[in-house]
Amino acid sequence: MPIKAQALAEGIRSLANHMHQNDLPADLSLGNIVAIDCETMGLNPHRDRLCLVQLSAGDGDAHLVQIRKGQNEAPNLCRLLSDPTVLKIFHYGRFDIAALYQAFGTLTTPVYCTKIASRLVRTYTDRHGLKNLTQELLGVDISKQQQMSDWGAAHLTDAQLDYAASDVLHLHRLRKALNKRLHREDRTEIAQACFDFLPTRARLDLAGWPDTDIFAHS
Amino acid sequence: MPIKAQALAEGIRSLANHMHQNDLPADLSLGNIVAIDCETMGLNPHRDRLCLVQLSAGDGDAHLVQIRKGQNEAPNLCRLLSDPTVLKIFHYGRFDIAALYQAFGTLTTPVYCTKIASRLVRTYTDRHGLKNLTQELLGVDISKQQQMSDWGAAHLTDAQLDYAASDVLHLHRLRKALNKRLHREDRTEIAQACFDFLPTRARLDLAGWPDTDIFAHS
Amino acid sequence: MPIKAQALAEGIRSLANHMHQNDLPADLSLGNIVAIDCETMGLNPHRDRLCLVQLSAGDGDAHLVQIRKGQNEAPNLCRLLSDPTVLKIFHYGRFDIAALYQAFGTLTTPVYCTKIASRLVRTYTDRHGLKNLTQELLGVDISKQQQMSDWGAAHLTDAQLDYAASDVLHLHRLRKALNKRLHREDRTEIAQACFDFLPTRARLDLAGWPDTDIFAHS
Amino acid sequence: MPIKAQALAEGIRSLANHMHQNDLPADLSLGNIVAIDCETMGLNPHRDRLCLVQLSAGDGDAHLVQIRKGQNEAPNLCRLLSDPTVLKIFHYGRFDIAALYQAFGTLTTPVYCTKIASRLVRTYTDRHGLKNLTQELLGVDISKQQQMSDWGAAHLTDAQLDYAASDVLHLHRLRKALNKRLHREDRTEIAQACFDFLPTRARLDLAGWPDTDIFAHS
Amino acid sequence: MPIKAQALAEGIRSLANHMHQNDLPADLSLGNIVAIDCETMGLNPHRDRLCLVQLSAGDGDAHLVQIRKGQNEAPNLCRLLSDPTVLKIFHYGRFDIAALYQAFGTLTTPVYCTKIASRLVRTYTDRHGLKNLTQELLGVDISKQQQMSDWGAAHLTDAQLDYAASDVLHLHRLRKALNKRLHREDRTEIAQACFDFLPTRARLDLAGWPDTDIFAHS
Amino acid sequence: MPIKAQALAEGIRSLANHMHQNDLPADLSLGNIVAIDCETMGLNPHRDRLCLVQLSAGDGDAHLVQIRKGQNEAPNLCRLLSDPTVLKIFHYGRFDIAALYQAFGTLTTPVYCTKIASRLVRTYTDRHGLKNLTQELLGVDISKQQQMSDWGAAHLTDAQLDYAASDVLHLHRLRKALNKRLHREDRTEIAQACFDFLPTRARLDLAGWPDTDIFAHS
Amino acid sequence: MPIKAQALAEGIRSLANHMHQNDLPADLSLGNIVAIDCETMGLNPHRDRLCLVQLSAGDGDAHLVQIRKGQNEAPNLCRLLSDPTVLKIFHYGRFDIAALYQAFGTLTTPVYCTKIASRLVRTYTDRHGLKNLTQELLGVDISKQQQMSDWGAAHLTDAQLDYAASDVLHLHRLRKALNKRLHREDRTEIAQACFDFLPTRARLDLAGWPDTDIFAHS
Amino acid sequence: MPIKAQALAEGIRSLANHMHQNDLPADLSLGNIVAIDCETMGLNPHRDRLCLVQLSAGDGDAHLVQIRKGQNEAPNLCRLLSDPTVLKIFHYGRFDIAALYQAFGTLTTPVYCTKIASRLVRTYTDRHGLKNLTQELLGVDISKQQQMSDWGAAHLTDAQLDYAASDVLHLHRLRKALNKRLHREDRTEIAQACFDFLPTRARLDLAGWPDTDIFAHS
Repeated sequence: MPIKAQALAEGIRSLANHMHQNDLPADLSLGNIVAIDCETMGLNPHRDRLCLVQLSAGDGDAHLVQIRKGQNEAPNLCRLLSDPTVLKIFHYGRFDIAALYQAFGTLTTPVYCTKIASRLVRTYTDRHGLKNLTQELLGVDISKQQQMSDWGAAHLTDAQLDYAASDVLHLHRLRKALNKRLHREDRTEIAQACFDFLPTRARLDLAGWPDTDIFAHS
Repeated sequence: MPIKAQALAEGIRSLANHMHQNDLPADLSLGNIVAIDCETMGLNPHRDRLCLVQLSAGDGDAHLVQIRKGQNEAPNLCRLLSDPTVLKIFHYGRFDIAALYQAFGTLTTPVYCTKIASRLVRTYTDRHGLKNLTQELLGVDISKQQQMSDWGAAHLTDAQLDYAASDVLHLHRLRKALNKRLHREDRTEIAQACFDFLPTRARLDLAGWPDTDIFAHS
Repeated sequence: MPIKAQALAEGIRSLANHMHQNDLPADLSLGNIVAIDCETMGLNPHRDRLCLVQLSAGDGDAHLVQIRKGQNEAPNLCRLLSDPTVLKIFHYGRFDIAALYQAFGTLTTPVYCTKIASRLVRTYTDRHGLKNLTQELLGVDISKQQQMSDWGAAHLTDAQLDYAASDVLHLHRLRKALNKRLHREDRTEIAQACFDFLPTRARLDLAGWPDTDIFAHS
Repeated sequence: MPIKAQALAEGIRSLANHMHQNDLPADLSLGNIVAIDCETMGLNPHRDRLCLVQLSAGDGDAHLVQIRKGQNEAPNLCRLLSDPTVLKIFHYGRFDIAALYQAFGTLTTPVYCTKIASRLVRTYTDRHGLKNLTQELLGVDISKQQQMSDWGAAHLTDAQLDYAASDVLHLHRLRKALNKRLHREDRTEIAQACFDFLPTRARLDLAGWPDTDIFAHS
Repeated sequence: MPIKAQALAEGIRSLANHMHQNDLPADLSLGNIVAIDCETMGLNPHRDRLCLVQLSAGDGDAHLVQIRKGQNEAPNLCRLLSDPTVLKIFHYGRFDIAALYQAFGTLTTPVYCTKIASRLVRTYTDRHGLKNLTQELLGVDISKQQQMSDWGAAHLTDAQLDYAASDVLHLHRLRKALNKRLHREDRTEIAQACFDFLPTRARLDLAGWPDTDIFAHS
Repeated sequence: MPIKAQALAEGIRSLANHMHQNDLPADLSLGNIVAIDCETMGLNPHRDRLCLVQLSAGDGDAHLVQIRKGQNEAPNLCRLLSDPTVLKIFHYGRFDIAALYQAFGTLTTPVYCTKIASRLVRTYTDRHGLKNLTQELLGVDISKQQQMSDWGAAHLTDAQLDYAASDVLHLHRLRKALNKRLHREDRTEIAQACFDFLPTRARLDLAGWPDTDIFAHS
Repeated sequence: MPIKAQALAEGIRSLANHMHQNDLPADLSLGNIVAIDCETMGLNPHRDRLCLVQLSAGDGDAHLVQIRKGQNEAPNLCRLLSDPTVLKIFHYGRFDIAALYQAFGTLTTPVYCTKIASRLVRTYTDRHGLKNLTQELLGVDISKQQQMSDWGAAHLTDAQLDYAASDVLHLHRLRKALNKRLHREDRTEIAQACFDFLPTRARLDLAGWPDTDIFAHS
Repeated sequence: MPIKAQALAEGIRSLANHMHQNDLPADLSLGNIVAIDCETMGLNPHRDRLCLVQLSAGDGDAHLVQIRKGQNEAPNLCRLLSDPTVLKIFHYGRFDIAALYQAFGTLTTPVYCTKIASRLVRTYTDRHGLKNLTQELLGVDISKQQQMSDWGAAHLTDAQLDYAASDVLHLHRLRKALNKRLHREDRTEIAQACFDFLPTRARLDLAGWPDTDIFAHS
């Protein structure tokens, strides 16, 4: 498995996917900086249910929580999402924060978004996908092939699970690299103000303004 | 003068335009809620200098501060802009906050924006111009005829001054009407979160992301 | 009031607006063909609540049912909506059927839509608004000025109520005129097949395919 | 021939292309669920004549009926198309139903369309081509290389015939896989309502509304 | 009636609308230059039947031939359409030639088109509607209000008939004025070549290339 | 005649249109700043011939030189166009310089263009038509009604001649007003560099790059 | 050289490129059906001069006539172009006919255009490039790599000359294949009418209507 | 390293990258024709600082001057930029001239731009990138892979430095090849007029008209 090999080569301790049903284990601690990503049935949160939540403490392990159809509670997970002492790292967190809020009614905060950070420092490009970031900043190639697949299936394939895990394994290192650049260009403070507004932006998506830039002139 | 007549008919105490050069008088107090609007040479803050700042305490009087070419200080005005105990009401404050920050280096806060509030409650329309708001919510017709005129002239015409004043005279009453609607539809809190981000949005405009929705997917 | 005058001149018995709160009276019968229209807070059914339902038996009277915020039941009204022996006439019924389904969970059927009928016979134009239909087929001018107004207000204005009523007063006569044309051009059967699908189309809107022509190639 | 090899590997009994001129044999029975696809001279049914109709009972055999220029009858085929006890499976049946109706005046019913079903369950993608469906749901790659070729030729090439057959060989299995997903997501009923309207949608195409979403607002 | 008044003022002999059912009278002669216009149920010749054919000899009289639904013969009219010794003047003849060919199977030739002539000499404008031509070249204002009306009605209104007539009354004089300009600018020959191709262009419309510029690069 | 009245009211000496055939009189002197405008058969210089050249010394008189079809010399006019001691004022000179170069082979220089000057100082608007300039800067309303008319006619109408004259009568005063603004905003030098390039830009139009911004990135 | 090998394999007699300067030899006869193609400095005939004319009698030989800058006569070539007994075959002849007319003032006629013929029979595709035609109808792959190269160079490269020749070597066989299809689909006559108009269409391009479909509605 | 190999093969003396901090050495002479290119943090000169300036005398050596954040002086470099006896060659000089003017306040002049020259002679293509030019005119392939990378890093990678150098190594030879073509097509003079305006065009970009073609009609 190439990701594992690569991870080991880079000195990451190990790489294991831990599968959980419906919620995180009550006794699992992921530290005070947690990378999170979600897989859903599609991009319309009113229609497309949450299927999988991936989390990582940045140690090379991924925890995958499978959400069943109709489920609207996950107390351990939600405690982490709203814990003010735990920073949640996302790539394009706007979507994930909305999906989690729609599923469980819990607003994720505080957050960090690698796409927003990239927009503020990688001014020489308009390519801010996760794949672009890992490639340039970490020298790591990740595949997006399983991105559009049937995450609502009862039994996910190994390809799906590896893809899902790979989306959270690099976020801690990306944040570090992006924070260096934000500092170098004096944009740390403005990035933080954007991160602080992100949960509100996700709520606006759900509340009925998904395609409206609420700050636009017209 | 029709605006004056209308104002009197509505029981507004008086209607006077007070002209000031370069700054507000040091001893002028406008209370803890001040309506503000700006006139500039155009919409490009790097090119088009600030020409006029209009303020009103909501009592029917307008204070017009003319800014001279090259001026980059206005201490009394700036004290008010950054005073955390004074709420500044704008219509499309994003532009004005950026223009004032570009001119004087002072970020306006806290703020209220009637355009954003309108977007959140007048969901049945996409017309959120000041003219539309005063018409529907106050039954007042205002003219926008002088909007695009030479505000950089040394001597502004009476038509320009009346127009400039009219842009701040109704903002207090608009805020009251919009706040009622925000409350009725349970959107007060989300509106406040948007207002809190507005100064950051204005800084992003100046810092080089004027046409970027920093929260967009791509 | 011009609409009343016009109605009388055309021999319509009378013109009265009957206001009801939350539901139709239990004992009110509107016959087996009822014209219906809805007013909401806007065009997004997930965000913009139903405010008013207007009904008419085609006798010149209008029944206006005001719906309060949070209300999700109206048993008398819903009995009528789903009554298989009562034909419900709409203009652009897709929107109204969705709004009523979203509010009360009741699917309206059977239905007739004057916009669809117009598309099938008025092939010489692409203007199929209610205003265009009443003008050409009935010689009646109706105003759409109050269309975008605050229908969520506790107290609706007289202008709003008259506008709301005017939207259902002409539908019976429009249906007769359009049916003649459908018959003349041998399109009655295909029109009926479209009407039969209309409630499904409205459900697709709510279920998450509002902007998708489900039958399109791509 | 790769398709044959693949078919055998999957335990399909055999794979034979049966060629017929102008009509199906009178005594051929294809069961009560038949997959159908058409090849024409192009996408404009008023201009581009029907050239080939492919059918399969889902047993790995394909029956190819070549239609000659000017032909407007095919009684055995038409009996099957309108047989209320035989379900006809298509991929994007809208086109085929219209082509058959234009050629023979027979409306196909009842029908099932794998493109519509895919739209209702594969919400995570906008790629609903036959190739995408067989790839994801069956793990089968089909070629579309001959799609745009001269189907009006008197003698079709082997490549054309194999391509034509391949379009109907997988529809039975696709339907089964899609039905499972429709059931899982509670969308079986709404899919059926769409299938029921499909013949009407095809008639609208021929009757002069090919580019009109008859249910659209404007 | 303003058109009549105007016509008389300009010395035109008289202005009478002669109504005919289904065909021209066998014994009517309209000379060797005839102005023709058609009214249909719409712009789609496969769907929208021909309803009225207007003709004029240029003497101020208009002959209106009403075509009944399903009619596909009009021998007197068709003799005139294909008479090689009679020039038929149209404005945007492409549409009328196609409508007549679709209705009766007769191709109109030879023809003259005032829209094409206008494109070749009125190079200073892109407004080549009939209304624009009569206004600039003849100083006559014509109304297009009835253009989109129900021409399939059994009984046409007076407003419809006057509008229909007005479309052919000015074509002779327009041709004269345009011919002068074509001569002045040395474009008579190229105009004639365009007129000669026009019936073919109309046939291409019916044969399935209505939206294709057959001479385009791609 | 309203323009004359207005001119007199403003103290302009007189207003006379002097008509010349084919060239200016040899002995006419128009001073060292001349306003010029052209009328042609349209906007395509390869197709649409020059018909009229209007000139004014800024004293209220207009000199109109009618150019006959096929004419390619006008020595007196051309001497003025290329006289390095005479500044030629245009509004959108790019078109006129190209038309004159195409007609006579003479490149006009030096030049001043009121549209370019307006773009550089009226930054608050994107309306830089001659009509907009005279309205805002001079308080004069001019009509553009005859702009698109048959300038190739042998006998021009009075309306055409008055319109043609009105296009050059205000250019001297516009230049003065615009120069004041250019000076106020420190843009005189950059405007001059643009004026100096204008004849080259006109040559590029004729040489085959009319729609290419030669300085664009792609 | 692959083209030669392929040609020989197909039984074509030989393949030679005959180079001529400025004109065809006076004594060269190419039969009564000649394939022609042109290379120019670009697509703008007013700017981009004709550089090379390629001709073939359909026997596998190509005659390449190099045209020098400023040349405006080629009597032998022009005699052939206007010879009413010699059919000239082009692919997208509109461009070539215009280029030759612009260079020498001679209008090519009669003509045949393989692109137009393809549009009329290959209704199943919108790809009507020469490369597409040779591939589908002849099974021959041609390269378009040198299409955009410096044809104005004094010494053309071998790659340029081979490319130039390849554009005329297949046109005779393409015409035969397309004529069969035109006949099969009863479109021979309408194709001929289009070919007859093609020289006029080319003249319209040069005369100033290159982007105008002269037959369009607006 | 392939570029070096290629260079040697072409007889270029040597290929060395000379790195300088903040400015050129005071005693370095690069002759009277210097190729220049810049690397910045992005395309917005108000936001994205200048990072690297590459220069070459055309002898195969490249001088790379790294500019530190906040630096606004580079006297040796600026002396060269404004030296009227030294011609500066750029590819798309508009961007570089603006970047240098923004960084140091020095306007580069006189200049030559290979993109503008290419537009004027390579009329057969719209591909005027540096890569296209070196490929066609020099037969050299250059990579653009590092174009969008983090030029603001303190330590640039070898790949970045080689890419940066490669952008200036070919400009002298490109200019020679383009000058030959400009001469052949009689466009040398018009090209020079465009080069002369280029610094003004760059100033307009910085002054607030980056997206405005100042010479456009509207």
